[in-house]
Amino acid sequence: MYDILERINQPSDLKTLDKKELSELCKEIRSFLVDKVTKNGGHLASNLGVVELTVALHLVFDMPRDKVVWDVGHQTYVHKILTGRRDAFDTLRTYKGLSGFPKTSESIYDCFNTGHSSTSVSAALGIARARDLKGEDSFVAAVFGDGAMTGGMIYEAINDVGHNKTPLILILNDNEMSISQNVGALSKYLRRLRHTKTYHRSKAHISSFLSHIPLMGGFLQARIRGMKDLIKSRVLPSTFFGDLGVEYLGPVDGHNLFGLVNVLNIAKSMNEPVLIHVKTKKGKGYEPAEKNPHIFHGISPQGGSSKTELKYSDYSQCAGETLIKLAQKNHDFVAISAAMPLGVGLGTFSHKYSDRFFDVGIAEQHAVTFCAGLAISGITPVFAVYSSFLQRSYDQILHDVCLQNLHVVFLVDRAGVVGADGETHHGLYDIAFLSDMPYMTILSPSCYEELEQMLEYAINEHDGPIAIRYPRGSTQATESEGFELNKIKVINPEGRKVIITHGRMAHTAISVAELMENIKIVVLPTIYPVPDELWDELEGAELTVVLDDHSISGGLGMIISSAASARDIQIHTIAFPSTPVIHGTVSQIDKHYGLDAQSVAQKIKELADET
Amino acid sequence: MYDILERINQPSDLKTLDKKELSELCKEIRSFLVDKVTKNGGHLASNLGVVELTVALHLVFDMPRDKVVWDVGHQTYVHKILTGRRDAFDTLRTYKGLSGFPKTSESIYDCFNTGHSSTSVSAALGIARARDLKGEDSFVAAVFGDGAMTGGMIYEAINDVGHNKTPLILILNDNEMSISQNVGALSKYLRRLRHTKTYHRSKAHISSFLSHIPLMGGFLQARIRGMKDLIKSRVLPSTFFGDLGVEYLGPVDGHNLFGLVNVLNIAKSMNEPVLIHVKTKKGKGYEPAEKNPHIFHGISPQGGSSKTELKYSDYSQCAGETLIKLAQKNHDFVAISAAMPLGVGLGTFSHKYSDRFFDVGIAEQHAVTFCAGLAISGITPVFAVYSSFLQRSYDQILHDVCLQNLHVVFLVDRAGVVGADGETHHGLYDIAFLSDMPYMTILSPSCYEELEQMLEYAINEHDGPIAIRYPRGSTQATESEGFELNKIKVINPEGRKVIITHGRMAHTAISVAELMENIKIVVLPTIYPVPDELWDELEGAELTVVLDDHSISGGLGMIISSAASARDIQIHTIAFPSTPVIHGTVSQIDKHYGLDAQSVAQKIKELADET
Repeated sequence: MYDILERINQPSDLKTLDKKELSELCKEIRSFLVDKVTKNGGHLASNLGVVELTVALHLVFDMPRDKVVWDVGHQTYVHKILTGRRDAFDTLRTYKGLSGFPKTSESIYDCFNTGHSSTSVSAALGIARARDLKGEDSFVAAVFGDGAMTGGMIYEAINDVGHNKTPLILILNDNEMSISQNVGALSKYLRRLRHTKTYHRSKAHISSFLSHIPLMGGFLQARIRGMKDLIKSRVLPSTFFGDLGVEYLGPVDGHNLFGLVNVLNIAKSMNEPVLIHVKTKKGKGYEPAEKNPHIFHGISPQGGSSKTELKYSDYSQCAGETLIKLAQKNHDFVAISAAMPLGVGLGTFSHKYSDRFFDVGIAEQHAVTFCAGLAISGITPVFAVYSSFLQRSYDQILHDVCLQNLHVVFLVDRAGVVGADGETHHGLYDIAFLSDMPYMTILSPSCYEELEQMLEYAINEHDGPIAIRYPRGSTQATESEGFELNKIKVINPEGRKVIITHGRMAHTAISVAELMENIKIVVLPTIYPVPDELWDELEGAELTVVLDDHSISGGLGMIISSAASARDIQIHTIAFPSTPVIHGTVSQIDKHYGLDAQSVAQKIKELADET
Repeated sequence: MYDILERINQPSDLKTLDKKELSELCKEIRSFLVDKVTKNGGHLASNLGVVELTVALHLVFDMPRDKVVWDVGHQTYVHKILTGRRDAFDTLRTYKGLSGFPKTSESIYDCFNTGHSSTSVSAALGIARARDLKGEDSFVAAVFGDGAMTGGMIYEAINDVGHNKTPLILILNDNEMSISQNVGALSKYLRRLRHTKTYHRSKAHISSFLSHIPLMGGFLQARIRGMKDLIKSRVLPSTFFGDLGVEYLGPVDGHNLFGLVNVLNIAKSMNEPVLIHVKTKKGKGYEPAEKNPHIFHGISPQGGSSKTELKYSDYSQCAGETLIKLAQKNHDFVAISAAMPLGVGLGTFSHKYSDRFFDVGIAEQHAVTFCAGLAISGITPVFAVYSSFLQRSYDQILHDVCLQNLHVVFLVDRAGVVGADGETHHGLYDIAFLSDMPYMTILSPSCYEELEQMLEYAINEHDGPIAIRYPRGSTQATESEGFELNKIKVINPEGRKVIITHGRMAHTAISVAELMENIKIVVLPTIYPVPDELWDELEGAELTVVLDDHSISGGLGMIISSAASARDIQIHTIAFPSTPVIHGTVSQIDKHYGLDAQSVAQKIKELADET
């Protein structure tokens, strides 16, 4: 079934194939991807879009000596398949299996770990400058999508590249989408670039010119060197990228393997920064994914989602639908997303209240200061964002929102461990960094009803910055007693061993109480500032433990135990380590780090024995 | 002396002046600025550069109904002088006096607080969208320098503005510098834009066209409306800004008041986003500042700097000169600055080792991931940056450096309270956010010699991410005992009241020990992870206090007291509040918040009485 693919155990094996075999290989890779990913889950559409590009990169470059940094990194499945990880592919994104992202610890062919958007050009520039400082001779490339181009740091990097002229190959994988539909003026510009007459003419020239260049093997540097000037004069005379000091080559068809090989070889021959504009189609070659690439962006394993009787499928949907309800009565709030309207549950809101919804692109920094501008003008912004991506706007939350004590509502989705995406995507730092900031309030619901009530409170009643953090998925831990700021919930008030917890971990605490006696559970819907009522509940406790879906550094355990020290109360914390947290299912990760009910009960027993 | 200026008590007073008086006013403002700022300190060159622009903005706009957001905000002195704060100007940047930055709490004419670079377009867009949502009719503008254009978030914002076409006036105050010489390919492009033939022709056309428009008063919307298309056809056909969906007007002479008024009126008549490219000269009208604008960027009050016998004038210089010494023997490290080579003491290094020095512009995000790329390739990057600006790269430090445990050295300058710049510039959060991160080590020297030793350790011996935080200025607290990681320093080992401290606060602790008996001081050159040796020193203590030059939220006090709670040890913290910290001299600020030696002694007495 995969006759050719099975012969590729390292990238150099590609160079033994002839043209026909290479074309066949691309087909085999596509069917391998569709087969595996529809079964096991993962990112399908983006990987189908880069089959030819990835094969071309391995034909033209000599990795690991040459380095390719993949922006975001969820489009590296083809790269993984071609670099000795084909047979392990069934373990992708599973506990102790392959990561869904590049990992230097996994393969010598992965040169830099990625996960968040728009980092690739900065990292590649660092690698390229190090090469030059060490006097080494190799090629460095960054591959990034048009979505990543909406993130400011990639612009900072291109501005630097174009200034200092470090030889570097930038590959813009332009599929006209980030995860949902792309936004931003630049994406309009790229569309124009694809369709101008100048482009067609340039492209025709390049194509006819390139057809005279043999494909591989004999394709030697010397043969191209003299052609450099000719090529350069045939690209567009002035582009956005040219203004930033980077030579522009393209656009080229990202599904024409041999055209890609040619243009990459030209880029190699140009001893300066060059950007190749590659047009690809997300989901290419698999009809369902071509038609609905946003649905096939990340897909769940077959049969993976269990049917429930719950009101919503997950917290994101709960947030989105609640916002719609609130919007009917309160006309003074708006919702903001950074290129993730579907992921954060704002799909329906964005249509129903299109005048009150703003998608700013992958631009969390701008999103937050934009919110500050709205808030200072009397409009309440609700910024829904994944915890891990909110990290990008640390300074804007602090400097623009909190120092001015503005009423901005942060919906911190995917807080805590997120599962298969792993270390770069876990939301394990938000309590730490948000609680650093002046005037910040942090809430954590343990069920949908509580999230509904918190949203109503945060938008309609609260003043100043407020964050509501909730997990990926649907863990329903406790029933709501009607949310009030600072009100705590106590389960088994007679217990003398106290677990202080919040959010989905309330569920774990309840399971612990089923495993051992004398457990009292204090659930904090308001986690920061820590409610005063909490301290009354600790009187007469034999043992107090904070159980936290967060890194131990700076999390609720640290906040409460620090306040406890001044009160001379002993507190222990059970939380995730401050070192990177692995991928797997959420329950596997919990268990791995001792945060499942069994392990927590055992730990409490040990602590009780010690004291 | 200031005959006309003294008649301006609010912006509307400007509109009573004739052309000749307005020109005279600009002269008076310049001599007022030179007089006051050379005496009291502050930002001179940037304010001299915007005299005409500020007057023009107040002539054309009707503030506070119309809103102008000033990027960075240290160029708002002229604005302050014209908006009722002339007589208070002698208190600028002093304790309980006027802020050196816009403050909504200070004046209704300040519409949004700024301090860090590149926020203005995002904030202005938020204000403009709120205006549109509320159906209000007003103008919103953002004024930003070409330096701010190197920061990615302004690009994120322009990309959004150009996409959604919200009417907004962007004013690029192009003085060809940020603080030092500007970097980045875009600044080269702007320079080209200023000197192309197209520009000259366009400019000539616009000028001749504008000369027919009366200056003010009769200058009505209706008269211009029809001219819009004419104007548009005469600007450059394709620009970087045009590619981003924003109309480009200019360049215009930023020292021609009436030209500025005209072009601003044209921008008002265009119901869409427009960027006005204004050419200004930093230091304009004051010869010493025109010649050396970087020296007159921020200047100290006359006679303010005391002569000392110390080896260096401040920690920044110590860092810079030590790096030069280390660079002679270790060829594998490089230094990076984000547009602040002089501020962080890297001026000499940048010349002497120009091949090993990279100024990336006001682009802290890119700087850090660029460092990660260098580090993963075996080159050790040393990124010297102000604590407050490092906040911008939170995600990059965490995601790109720390998750990969890369050897990047952060020199965190201006850590702790910084004095006159106030709330947006204090470095009061770095211990909190850096200690959140995997594998991070944080050092804090108490004297120059210790910083020298720490630098040598961090660059030559350490592996993984490491930050050295040190204050603005020169407080020398203790002598170095020879830095070793995790080694602590104990002063008065017999004392039973323990002060745990670090950095400049060691000096305060020593003064406390002079004021009261029984004080033992534990100085931590390694503050994170907290050295194990510390706990031995707390045995038998009557009272333990952490004294910290940091916000109380997430600082050393919280870190130590949290660990102490699990050990059942009571710890108190004396630190700055988590709410915004005022400006003034460092000693005034210390005293204001109870962190001077007298107040600390008093607090320790109170705590001892309680226990």
